[in-house]
Amino acid sequence: MDPLDDAALDQLFRTARTHNHWLDKPVTDETIRKIYDTMKFGPTSANTTPARFVFVRSETAKARLRTALAPGNVEKTMSAPLTVIIAYDLRFYEKLPKLFPHSPAMRDLFAANPQLVETTARRNSSLQGAYFMIAARAMGLDCGPLSGFDNAKVDEIFFAAGRECEGCDQEFFPEGHVRSNFLCNLGYGDPAKLFPRSPRLEFAEACTFL
Amino acid sequence: MDPLDDAALDQLFRTARTHNHWLDKPVTDETIRKIYDTMKFGPTSANTTPARFVFVRSETAKARLRTALAPGNVEKTMSAPLTVIIAYDLRFYEKLPKLFPHSPAMRDLFAANPQLVETTARRNSSLQGAYFMIAARAMGLDCGPLSGFDNAKVDEIFFAAGRECEGCDQEFFPEGHVRSNFLCNLGYGDPAKLFPRSPRLEFAEACTFL
Repeated sequence: MDPLDDAALDQLFRTARTHNHWLDKPVTDETIRKIYDTMKFGPTSANTTPARFVFVRSETAKARLRTALAPGNVEKTMSAPLTVIIAYDLRFYEKLPKLFPHSPAMRDLFAANPQLVETTARRNSSLQGAYFMIAARAMGLDCGPLSGFDNAKVDEIFFAAGRECEGCDQEFFPEGHVRSNFLCNLGYGDPAKLFPRSPRLEFAEACTFL
Repeated sequence: MDPLDDAALDQLFRTARTHNHWLDKPVTDETIRKIYDTMKFGPTSANTTPARFVFVRSETAKARLRTALAPGNVEKTMSAPLTVIIAYDLRFYEKLPKLFPHSPAMRDLFAANPQLVETTARRNSSLQGAYFMIAARAMGLDCGPLSGFDNAKVDEIFFAAGRECEGCDQEFFPEGHVRSNFLCNLGYGDPAKLFPRSPRLEFAEACTFL
């Protein structure tokens, strides 16, 4: 496999930026589905794929999300075409008979070990959140991830009890076993409103060969 | 920004696979540095970039790693050209004066809140681990991530006390504040040895619009 060209590396990483100001251009359902149908193939531990994605777009849902945001994150989130709640399902293991069919014991291993479930769900939903953002950039979108919000409040508002789950054939919302990980605003960023990029660690500050 | 073409989406996600069998082709230092210099731009909370990467390549280091692996992960790891320990530094905030220079208060906010440090380090080093894998695939490499190992043992062996840190100008190893997150074997995978890909969740099983 050849390396991707410079333009692709730039679009995914090198010149891509976190955006806080958005052009007046909507994000279509079709684009969201394309992102999911790309990022879903990213690797997770025992193919657990514990991430769940809530696409907050309606005014009503945005207003509910607003109450959980840190003050500095309100404006950028309310003005974004769409905000994704990257969440994780603590009962992800119930889907392992489908996702990991060659090893039926895996479901029971997780079911018997809540600490392993928690660690696995957090780590792998974070991986999947990263896959989501890179896939969104691959589709030409910009991302504005943030963790400055009240996770417990988001969980209470969006995941706690009896909520309708539009388009879901699996009722994971009503039972309160989904937890928020982080948020990501999504849209087409306004490059004119970017501030200069902050530094990164040099190779030798973050890496070593042994 | 236009979407990347199908070949790029395939290479990064759609036809990329987790590999357990490796071609006899080394991974050069130059390639590793290119991957780091690409993935380092991926977004993290307050630009904290808490991930640290140990590239385990020498026979000695591989032999030490072996003792911490789950039995099912020994062969694929020992035969990989290189294994990356994706770790996180619990004192990442000491680098914020460099990484987040416009807000000196951020360092103190983290320094005063160990729970926030732990959550931030785990979440963001997982994001960075995902960026690393996608950047590796972008360079034409294959990945074999795994979490079936004894984290405490890896931390004891590689991060606990007085270890030499080759090429590091920041002595983060000796003080015991670096923890392993997950491992990733790296190399050029043998496509002939892949098993069929496992299923993924449908959009409606993992996603909802609100």
